[in-house]
Amino acid sequence: MTTLLQVERDAIAGAARRVMARCDELARVSATAGAIERVYLSPEHARVNRLAAEWMRELGMTTRQDAAGNQLGRLRVNPAPSGRSPGEPAARDEAPALLLGSHLDTVPDAGRYDGIVGVLMALEVVRMLRVPAPEGTGFRSPLPFALEVVAFSDEEGTRFGKALLGSSAVAGEWDDDWWALTDADGTTLREAFLEFGLDPGRVGEAARRPDELVGYLEAHIEQGPELDERGESLAVVSSIASARRFQLVVEGEARHAGGTPYDRRRDALLGASEAALAVERICRSEHHIIGTVGQLEAYPGAVNIVPGEAHLSLDLRGEFDGERDRVWQQIERDLDEIMGRRGLRWRAHEIHSAPAVFCAPLLQDAVSVGIRSTTPDTADDPAVIFSRAGHDGMAIGAVTDVGMLFLRNPDGISHHPDEAVSAGDVARGIQALAESVLQLAADRG
Amino acid sequence: MTTLLQVERDAIAGAARRVMARCDELARVSATAGAIERVYLSPEHARVNRLAAEWMRELGMTTRQDAAGNQLGRLRVNPAPSGRSPGEPAARDEAPALLLGSHLDTVPDAGRYDGIVGVLMALEVVRMLRVPAPEGTGFRSPLPFALEVVAFSDEEGTRFGKALLGSSAVAGEWDDDWWALTDADGTTLREAFLEFGLDPGRVGEAARRPDELVGYLEAHIEQGPELDERGESLAVVSSIASARRFQLVVEGEARHAGGTPYDRRRDALLGASEAALAVERICRSEHHIIGTVGQLEAYPGAVNIVPGEAHLSLDLRGEFDGERDRVWQQIERDLDEIMGRRGLRWRAHEIHSAPAVFCAPLLQDAVSVGIRSTTPDTADDPAVIFSRAGHDGMAIGAVTDVGMLFLRNPDGISHHPDEAVSAGDVARGIQALAESVLQLAADRG
Repeated sequence: MTTLLQVERDAIAGAARRVMARCDELARVSATAGAIERVYLSPEHARVNRLAAEWMRELGMTTRQDAAGNQLGRLRVNPAPSGRSPGEPAARDEAPALLLGSHLDTVPDAGRYDGIVGVLMALEVVRMLRVPAPEGTGFRSPLPFALEVVAFSDEEGTRFGKALLGSSAVAGEWDDDWWALTDADGTTLREAFLEFGLDPGRVGEAARRPDELVGYLEAHIEQGPELDERGESLAVVSSIASARRFQLVVEGEARHAGGTPYDRRRDALLGASEAALAVERICRSEHHIIGTVGQLEAYPGAVNIVPGEAHLSLDLRGEFDGERDRVWQQIERDLDEIMGRRGLRWRAHEIHSAPAVFCAPLLQDAVSVGIRSTTPDTADDPAVIFSRAGHDGMAIGAVTDVGMLFLRNPDGISHHPDEAVSAGDVARGIQALAESVLQLAADRG
Repeated sequence: MTTLLQVERDAIAGAARRVMARCDELARVSATAGAIERVYLSPEHARVNRLAAEWMRELGMTTRQDAAGNQLGRLRVNPAPSGRSPGEPAARDEAPALLLGSHLDTVPDAGRYDGIVGVLMALEVVRMLRVPAPEGTGFRSPLPFALEVVAFSDEEGTRFGKALLGSSAVAGEWDDDWWALTDADGTTLREAFLEFGLDPGRVGEAARRPDELVGYLEAHIEQGPELDERGESLAVVSSIASARRFQLVVEGEARHAGGTPYDRRRDALLGASEAALAVERICRSEHHIIGTVGQLEAYPGAVNIVPGEAHLSLDLRGEFDGERDRVWQQIERDLDEIMGRRGLRWRAHEIHSAPAVFCAPLLQDAVSVGIRSTTPDTADDPAVIFSRAGHDGMAIGAVTDVGMLFLRNPDGISHHPDEAVSAGDVARGIQALAESVLQLAADRG
């Protein structure tokens, strides 16, 4: 099998080194000294958008920050109209675009690769595929579609508890109920938009039409140990988990810790503790379901007061929506029993729900071809993995086809400063991604 | 039995009404709108000290705020030296003093009686017992000792996690290690002293000598349901619980909630949840031990991250030190098993330890006489209750004898906005407290 990129091994190694160095550079843009934290609509968000835009313009892309704070760069099929420099805000040109990218926001105390590496790899793919435009107007896409690199602004949902805000806007799935979401300081999403310099009334302008897009292709670290255990670098993603998120409130009665005998207590924290353990017990007994309580707080939260209220989060993921919903019903029954026995009340507020998103067969095939180009000496099919982690593709799937490429993540550690990916795997990933794009071009040619 | 106070029923009812009204007035001094919260060395602490000092001076007491922020007022045996008004800072006079009082600080979202009612009742006892001083110099104590009302500044330990700071200073038990304690904002105790206008170098001046004191007598709501269940108003306190407090840290590994299968997780929050339930299980099986986890937090605390660390508090109380320590050892063994099984590490930092304090027989007898004066029609002995809740007497017991009077607390609700005490019980409590003081005077006479 002849590939474009086998003849440019040095260039790919250099591209991977640039990706790793830029991951380090972006890691320094953080709200927290000595750790990585970049949340939606923060000063750090603005800074990494500016950096990404600069890198896009260096490649001859026209750039814009969209109405939801996503950073976009476009490599046009046709040269920019005479009199406009590539650095000017991009009007959408006539050709449909293949979206390549991922997100630049992070969880608190994050690693430096989740999301980020996918945006930077997309830039390297553009660097490899671009060709000089006629009449010295910069560069253009040689393919039957434009190449757009997108840096989504809020995949993690750290700040407002609602994930995929950036990609939901692009998918035209923005929900006006979200404006009232608040962050830990009580700032609403609407206020945060205004503070960031965005106009809430124009968020709809971020939405793309299906006919504008060829598809969405994302490279991402696995965030799980499967590739590491198999000793492989890359995988085709078959689907992205179905996910629901809840905020649970347990209500009991705050009482004095010394004076209140056990049979008079309605301790909300103990109910919440049992609930967290019930989630673990129920989900462990299922094959394709994983549930996590990532947040738990007791109120009023004094050392000498029996907690009268507890708040906990629940993140529930499954390969299939039905199985996930059946497990949630089992959790509800167990919580009814626990809280009833303890004289507590509980309620759940669903803050996020996303059906499983299946990657489009055409895009899965293209990614598979791309991966095979990196392992010319084996006849084995590439690994195919179901993603338990959520990704922007879950939202983008509403407007265009989605494909994903996973990179090996040593020991599966993610959302943690020890999160890692090797430069060698990044190099193989860039090659596979570029080949996938060429395969898509061939499919359309 | 003839008592001083049976002939002054109207005055006692008026005193009780004043106590209830002042509890309402102090409830409005809060750091939190719509709730009660007054922590050590806060602006609210300064405001209630000023109010208490004003009320003390109205009674002819000399006042001072001591070197640890406790507010004191003294009704002297001998008139103030000529040329000094009762409003001037009090020098200690020649006579020993009976300390009457309680504390004015609160937990978050507190009730309005815990501590407060005891300070205000002490003021009413002074009002009843004081006599005009010769030559129009105000009022004096007619007893063989001075009467001092103390409003301790930090009984709850809400701000710095260490309880009884105010009374420990008075007992001469201040520990210089405490200066480095920090509040939730990272302010050290030393910095808070300076901000409040206190000199950390002079905290030793708050200490009292045993020969300066006759004893310490405190009225307090029960903070438990025992008197309410017995249908009685008042009780003699036999002893104050032995208490230890710990901050527990559980360490696991923060990982991505979606991508990490259960057998790869070391979820600190699930370990902490099991720990909280183990504390309940172990303490429930003991007769005289109560353990409470009032605080629990997961880190990094994102909805989509397996918690890598959890912090929880443990408050452990018992009637006897040995039983309490044996239970702590059992908890330690259970936590070793839980954390070992889950691949977690844990450690405990002891932030408070106080042995059980037994109320002095002479003071218990005086309180008993006081309570009997309020129930002339019955021959029954008053209720005698062991206090599971901690009180300033635990610290003051190091320097003088301690006695306590409990007031009925409907349903035992305390550390909660619904905390209550009836005006009738407050009236009976004022009478009992005044009679107790007269009994002590008779004992010394």
